[in-house]
Amino acid sequence: MKVDSTVVVQTVRLDISTRCENDVVDITEEVRNAVSSSSINSGLVCVFVSGSTATITAIEFEAGLIKDFVTTLSRIAPADITYEHDKRWQDGNGRSHVKASLIGPDLVVPLSNGKLELGTWQRIVLVEFDIRPRRRSIVIQIVGE
Amino acid sequence: MKVDSTVVVQTVRLDISTRCENDVVDITEEVRNAVSSSSINSGLVCVFVSGSTATITAIEFEAGLIKDFVTTLSRIAPADITYEHDKRWQDGNGRSHVKASLIGPDLVVPLSNGKLELGTWQRIVLVEFDIRPRRRSIVIQIVGE
Amino acid sequence: MKVDSTVVVQTVRLDISTRCENDVVDITEEVRNAVSSSSINSGLVCVFVSGSTATITAIEFEAGLIKDFVTTLSRIAPADITYEHDKRWQDGNGRSHVKASLIGPDLVVPLSNGKLELGTWQRIVLVEFDIRPRRRSIVIQIVGE
Repeated sequence: MKVDSTVVVQTVRLDISTRCENDVVDITEEVRNAVSSSSINSGLVCVFVSGSTATITAIEFEAGLIKDFVTTLSRIAPADITYEHDKRWQDGNGRSHVKASLIGPDLVVPLSNGKLELGTWQRIVLVEFDIRPRRRSIVIQIVGE
Repeated sequence: MKVDSTVVVQTVRLDISTRCENDVVDITEEVRNAVSSSSINSGLVCVFVSGSTATITAIEFEAGLIKDFVTTLSRIAPADITYEHDKRWQDGNGRSHVKASLIGPDLVVPLSNGKLELGTWQRIVLVEFDIRPRRRSIVIQIVGE
Repeated sequence: MKVDSTVVVQTVRLDISTRCENDVVDITEEVRNAVSSSSINSGLVCVFVSGSTATITAIEFEAGLIKDFVTTLSRIAPADITYEHDKRWQDGNGRSHVKASLIGPDLVVPLSNGKLELGTWQRIVLVEFDIRPRRRSIVIQIVGE
């Protein structure tokens, strides 16, 4: 049997300015708009931040929880210890790199019938771990039919 | 050259009841069954939990290790500290959210010739971080040929 | 409208020998070569390690930072505490499993016009968490057009 495949690839780019270390930006609507502007109804949506000191994850976007989340990460990679990266490069953002690599730059969300398969309170966020505001390049890659 | 693509998208939904906080459920066979019931032989299999207090990851499914894993996560986000999320919402599951966002809701596994590319002891698991039993909606999205 | 899809799936396998616990191996060029050797220009590239004590992530490949990263993970799952896994199996690698499951075996990177969408310093790495050298099987699964 010959299947007529209609699977295609579409790319949407997103530039997001972050305000400071530990800024958490809800980009769910931007990802939804990217999906709506595509011709794809079902497939995989990969949200990826090009950069080594930020991350993409999912979280309930509630101010208290956002604080809990970044506080937990600050316990894992504290600001007041010495990082080899900072000794060599004086960047001061050794902790930012460590946290970003722990969580990772990618999130893949299933898309079905035009809808991202997120839970009711589950939002897609960009987390800025760098120690200064950054302009972030995010790639939303949609593969589907 | 014209390539006759046979790539398609197929979605399988899985409902899993968890028993308690830190319940780890091996869903590898369910994912294998989803793949078998599809017409897809090679591609990507995304396993995603729709919800903010659970996660999907891979682990050797051995009782001692399961305990080590959840114990480590409980050191990262302990039960006996104050969470802003709990102060505002009295949910008591601030730690659950933090742990889930750290690991993430998605796992993507390559599929080749009908076989998930897992290691010998590598299993796909749902980890319940919420503080009470939950009914979990998992989406298995398969894109391939 | 009939879309002529040219989306296909291609698999490249990579065997990497690691030297010791906490060995971090930059595999970016190997992934780029896999993409170049494929016929795919745009899509998703999933890099997956088949095994329960290693992980794939992204990091700036700088010697100081690599040390900071594995040191942070060693604080999360220290070598000098007791693991249930080790008590039962005498493997001595309970910590390795815990760290691998925390980060995960998969990384998905968008591919556009033949180029992986990595940041300037962002590299794809295999991290060996096991306590002895291992031969690692990595699957690079490319789905795209």
